[in-house]
Amino acid sequence: MSKKSLENLFAPASIAIVGASNKKGKVGTVITDNILKLGYRGQVYLVNPSYKLLKLKKCYSSLSLIEKDVDVAIIAVPAKFVVGVIRESARKIKNFVVISAGFSEIGQEGEKLEKELQELSNTHGLNILGPNCLGFIVPGLKLNASFAGGMPEVGNIAFISQSGALAVALMDKAKQENLSFSNIVSVGNKMQLAESELLEYFANDNQTKVIGMYLEGIKDGQKFIETARRVSRIKPVVILKAGKTEKAQLAISSHTGALAGSDEIMDIAFEKSGIIRADDLEEFFDLLMFISFVDAPKNNKVSVITNAGGAGVLTTDAFKDKEVVLADFSKKIKEEIKKSLPPESSVENPIDLLGDAAADRYKAALDVLRDKNIGTHICVLTPQQQTPVEKITETIIENKKNSANVLMTIFIGGDRIRKSLADLKENFIPNFGNPDSAVRVLDKYYKWNVFKKNKQKSEKPGINIVRKKEVSSIIAGAFEEKRSALYFSEAAIVMKKYGITPVESLELLPGKNISETGQYPVVLKVDSDKVLHKSDKQALVLNIKNFSELEVAVQRLQKDFPMERLIIQPMNGKFAELILGIKRDEIFGPVIVYGLGGIYTEVFKMVNFMIPPMSKERIKTEILQSKISFLFQGVRSQKSADIDEFVNIVHGLMDFALENEDVREFDINPLFINTDGQKSVAVDIKIIL
Amino acid sequence: MSKKSLENLFAPASIAIVGASNKKGKVGTVITDNILKLGYRGQVYLVNPSYKLLKLKKCYSSLSLIEKDVDVAIIAVPAKFVVGVIRESARKIKNFVVISAGFSEIGQEGEKLEKELQELSNTHGLNILGPNCLGFIVPGLKLNASFAGGMPEVGNIAFISQSGALAVALMDKAKQENLSFSNIVSVGNKMQLAESELLEYFANDNQTKVIGMYLEGIKDGQKFIETARRVSRIKPVVILKAGKTEKAQLAISSHTGALAGSDEIMDIAFEKSGIIRADDLEEFFDLLMFISFVDAPKNNKVSVITNAGGAGVLTTDAFKDKEVVLADFSKKIKEEIKKSLPPESSVENPIDLLGDAAADRYKAALDVLRDKNIGTHICVLTPQQQTPVEKITETIIENKKNSANVLMTIFIGGDRIRKSLADLKENFIPNFGNPDSAVRVLDKYYKWNVFKKNKQKSEKPGINIVRKKEVSSIIAGAFEEKRSALYFSEAAIVMKKYGITPVESLELLPGKNISETGQYPVVLKVDSDKVLHKSDKQALVLNIKNFSELEVAVQRLQKDFPMERLIIQPMNGKFAELILGIKRDEIFGPVIVYGLGGIYTEVFKMVNFMIPPMSKERIKTEILQSKISFLFQGVRSQKSADIDEFVNIVHGLMDFALENEDVREFDINPLFINTDGQKSVAVDIKIIL
Repeated sequence: MSKKSLENLFAPASIAIVGASNKKGKVGTVITDNILKLGYRGQVYLVNPSYKLLKLKKCYSSLSLIEKDVDVAIIAVPAKFVVGVIRESARKIKNFVVISAGFSEIGQEGEKLEKELQELSNTHGLNILGPNCLGFIVPGLKLNASFAGGMPEVGNIAFISQSGALAVALMDKAKQENLSFSNIVSVGNKMQLAESELLEYFANDNQTKVIGMYLEGIKDGQKFIETARRVSRIKPVVILKAGKTEKAQLAISSHTGALAGSDEIMDIAFEKSGIIRADDLEEFFDLLMFISFVDAPKNNKVSVITNAGGAGVLTTDAFKDKEVVLADFSKKIKEEIKKSLPPESSVENPIDLLGDAAADRYKAALDVLRDKNIGTHICVLTPQQQTPVEKITETIIENKKNSANVLMTIFIGGDRIRKSLADLKENFIPNFGNPDSAVRVLDKYYKWNVFKKNKQKSEKPGINIVRKKEVSSIIAGAFEEKRSALYFSEAAIVMKKYGITPVESLELLPGKNISETGQYPVVLKVDSDKVLHKSDKQALVLNIKNFSELEVAVQRLQKDFPMERLIIQPMNGKFAELILGIKRDEIFGPVIVYGLGGIYTEVFKMVNFMIPPMSKERIKTEILQSKISFLFQGVRSQKSADIDEFVNIVHGLMDFALENEDVREFDINPLFINTDGQKSVAVDIKIIL
Repeated sequence: MSKKSLENLFAPASIAIVGASNKKGKVGTVITDNILKLGYRGQVYLVNPSYKLLKLKKCYSSLSLIEKDVDVAIIAVPAKFVVGVIRESARKIKNFVVISAGFSEIGQEGEKLEKELQELSNTHGLNILGPNCLGFIVPGLKLNASFAGGMPEVGNIAFISQSGALAVALMDKAKQENLSFSNIVSVGNKMQLAESELLEYFANDNQTKVIGMYLEGIKDGQKFIETARRVSRIKPVVILKAGKTEKAQLAISSHTGALAGSDEIMDIAFEKSGIIRADDLEEFFDLLMFISFVDAPKNNKVSVITNAGGAGVLTTDAFKDKEVVLADFSKKIKEEIKKSLPPESSVENPIDLLGDAAADRYKAALDVLRDKNIGTHICVLTPQQQTPVEKITETIIENKKNSANVLMTIFIGGDRIRKSLADLKENFIPNFGNPDSAVRVLDKYYKWNVFKKNKQKSEKPGINIVRKKEVSSIIAGAFEEKRSALYFSEAAIVMKKYGITPVESLELLPGKNISETGQYPVVLKVDSDKVLHKSDKQALVLNIKNFSELEVAVQRLQKDFPMERLIIQPMNGKFAELILGIKRDEIFGPVIVYGLGGIYTEVFKMVNFMIPPMSKERIKTEILQSKISFLFQGVRSQKSADIDEFVNIVHGLMDFALENEDVREFDINPLFINTDGQKSVAVDIKIIL
């Protein structure tokens, strides 16, 4: 979907409204009024067979009777008529907004209708927004092609919402917060125009500085990551993703039919894509306001200037576990600031101007700090008896004009700061009543900017056609034998192809006799798709120390599992046991899962996720930030395991996951890793078809 | 400190103002005006040797010249005069508010003055608020005995602040949020009246429903826990505790000289005391408002009623990891609600009334749910085109009158909901613009109510004088030999007294020969206060399998550590290794630390804290909720360790910690615990003096 094709949709020279009306309370009436009365200067055609004349304009009985070009048709007729209306005009009109509800969100019957609509769209190369949506609004064109009321201010926020009601609520709130928009789009069922297509369009829209999305589901996870990653290098994308809990996932499916994925994997996907995730609705508003108002800070250093010690302490607290930090002031800076402040004031960061501070002290501190390579200045104020709130506000606004740094405020109070809050907003200085919110939002914006600036290696997967074929034939062999899992020996061959070393292993077919292996201790296991949880079924014998013990063990397992093959493996020394697997996420496809093995996997819930493809460099960075990083760093006197070897194993596994979509379940458990220069080995490999 | 003694301070019949003035900008002038002009009906005496007549009243040259009784004297003269002023009248006047700054917060010289003040207070049995404080305000008496302006509304919040500026900011904000107060107290340096004394007073104050505190430090941790625990069973105590980060701790010490403790231990102390901790300033305001407005929910079930699917999903998300839960509606309830709603609406929880909902649908749902044993109802609203916001608000307000449940709202919007927000506030219906804040605050209030209702066993420590003497004499013996640590054999005797079993151990004095022990494998260690980190110094030999290996090991260690005694211990089998220790917290005194031993202690940072004394019952509950609970529950096929045995060990350790305040550092590392019926044993015991 290129920008070109959506430009006609969102910046149309002409619009037709199918279902235009003048009956009070009808959706068609609201849309007609919104388009005709709010200042849109393009051509408007009304379509409704019940009228000849409507709102003093000619009313067409069908779309096909309009003689001129129509860029967009807005459809607000009952669902059962929608496909017919579009089919009739699909040769001439390429952009449709389907307001009508009654599609996939209502169940089977609606799903059928939506499928027809999709096929029609594919056949004729249409752009269809919706169905079951509110429409869209472009304040710059004074175009309200929706059934929400009013016209927001023209600005730089593109807001895309999967909930019409939230879009309306945001517009209402926006007025009071001085938020302004390049576009507001309600996506409804996202049949065709979903998050990826819209991200792509707004990435190239010059009016848009920040893209904000409220999402309940994501349509095509892999495409979404790929697109969002690219777009996030151009401009910030802020997403409020609902559906964190299972209960919420039920509520969603009854309401838009979206498929919500595991929230932890969602986090990983967002992080990979450089998306700024809002934790809640309030933070979503805060982030949009903040990014709309100011550019990202040029570094992570922050100065805090306050007239209240307590508020300064709370602001300092807010930096806990953040990447933005309180700047350390040099002796010179402190001396310079000290000159203009009373002796009892503190020139450490936060700078405490004292309770009787007037505007001059704020000015003095800001002036000294202006060119000191500090990316952000936060002015904190509480309205004390003698505080000239508005004078101080003027000073801060004045300072902003001469500064390339981020300037933000934390004014805490009520009536006494009301006027100043309005003045700050008008001058695009973000204010927060809560220190924690201020620093959290700044931190997220800063991290996005780091993502944007970091050059990242390509993450193209290393798909290998020959290898893929070879593996397919091994899998086909198992299928022929009606097995649902590979034998260890087969899995071992497969793993080697991806650079993963299986443990040495000796096979013993059913009924065969064992001969001396020479090397002890060993482990004896049943190797079968019917015995996947070996220890639960007593299908393995550990720590066999000599041949006679081995003979006893073989006899016992051959008696208990007469039809199965057995394998003999050495008991390896090890430094640590890991677990490595592939989970198929319903939204994002294959996800690599890794963590500590043994009881610790379940006890500490210490598994980590990665979404392939990823460069080796990136895999390494993530592992070193993961919960098992300690294995590769050496704790106290412990040696550390080889990180590069483990990166190669994970990278191989990613290729395997992407090449072999038939594999339903996969894990290596345990993978033994060592610190003594020996190779890591996959001791048990489960490949389930 | 009984209620009686502070009643004269906070509800005085007469007040003297020392430093009363009419010079503009002076603190004494502001206080005089506040007391004279805002409606206080008690007797007021002005004291200032510079005036005969002031504000048309007689002005005394000293406190001692006032003929009548004076309940409180407010002191606003320079620090150096304060002690003199109080001394002169201390026989007659018992309550003082020292506004003056220049005491411990400015360093050594001020500390000296504050000490004099404290001594004076002790001698004469005075109550002194401050020094370095803003004063206090009692709206019910129209008494503003502070230099903050204005008079807040009369209400049920007692607000105690260690920051004067934050108190002022809260008062300003309070007006717009309809918050009202029983008392506002600025505590300044908390020389004498600190958090515990004020908690005690407000616990018994009938006007006060909720006590809110902004604290930067806590004066006497053990007294605080004891008091707060008791008060929290009477009414909720909400605390915003600043100083989470090290940087913040610096900022505090430069500003009020308070000692901030480790934030994690603060959390434990608050939890133990039933205190509701606010995470940030916004939540602090939210909690005060919420508790001021409504009583705690009678159970954890919540219903959500919404006119916007998206807002319903966000509200559902907010319940993640909370103790309050979305109620499961019975079939009967669903059918009843369904009757009054259109067929497309959802009667699962959240109940989706659909975007065109008018007041009747809200009413229908609320009516059905009223007597259904659901503690809380949340009405969610976004102002859609056809939403009659004010009508719906009226319905909600009407419903509150007939309901004993918590009724709260989440209205999301701007201009269109403004009037309704004011109406809700006026009717004490708490509204939140952010679903997550709403549920978080509800959850905290609910948990407090559970704490309040739970009968808890006494947590008196089992101090044993005889045992204490015996241990003291062992410690004295070590001191005489100029050792800073006990030998293992001594530590073992001490531990047995507290019910903790040390591992069997054989001592070998310096230069002595070893004779056959009979039992292998064993461990050989150096036992010395000079070798505390044995593995770092190669002062132990593990896994000694026979006598000849033992002889070699003894030779080596005797050569390397010729002056030290050695000990021989069996290599025990074990299920898990724990670490158990005592940390002396600067605020709360001895804190028990326990967690997984070995490399896991540091890797997973999985230590837990408990503050003694605690009942065995409570210790058990906490361990079963801790990060090592899995050891006592059995994971998969693993057996579990004996929880009661471990509880006894921890309880013994608590007695030890409380009885032996001389012990500077203590830990058992490792403590081996077993699943096979064998006793847990303390393998290494470090008692440092």
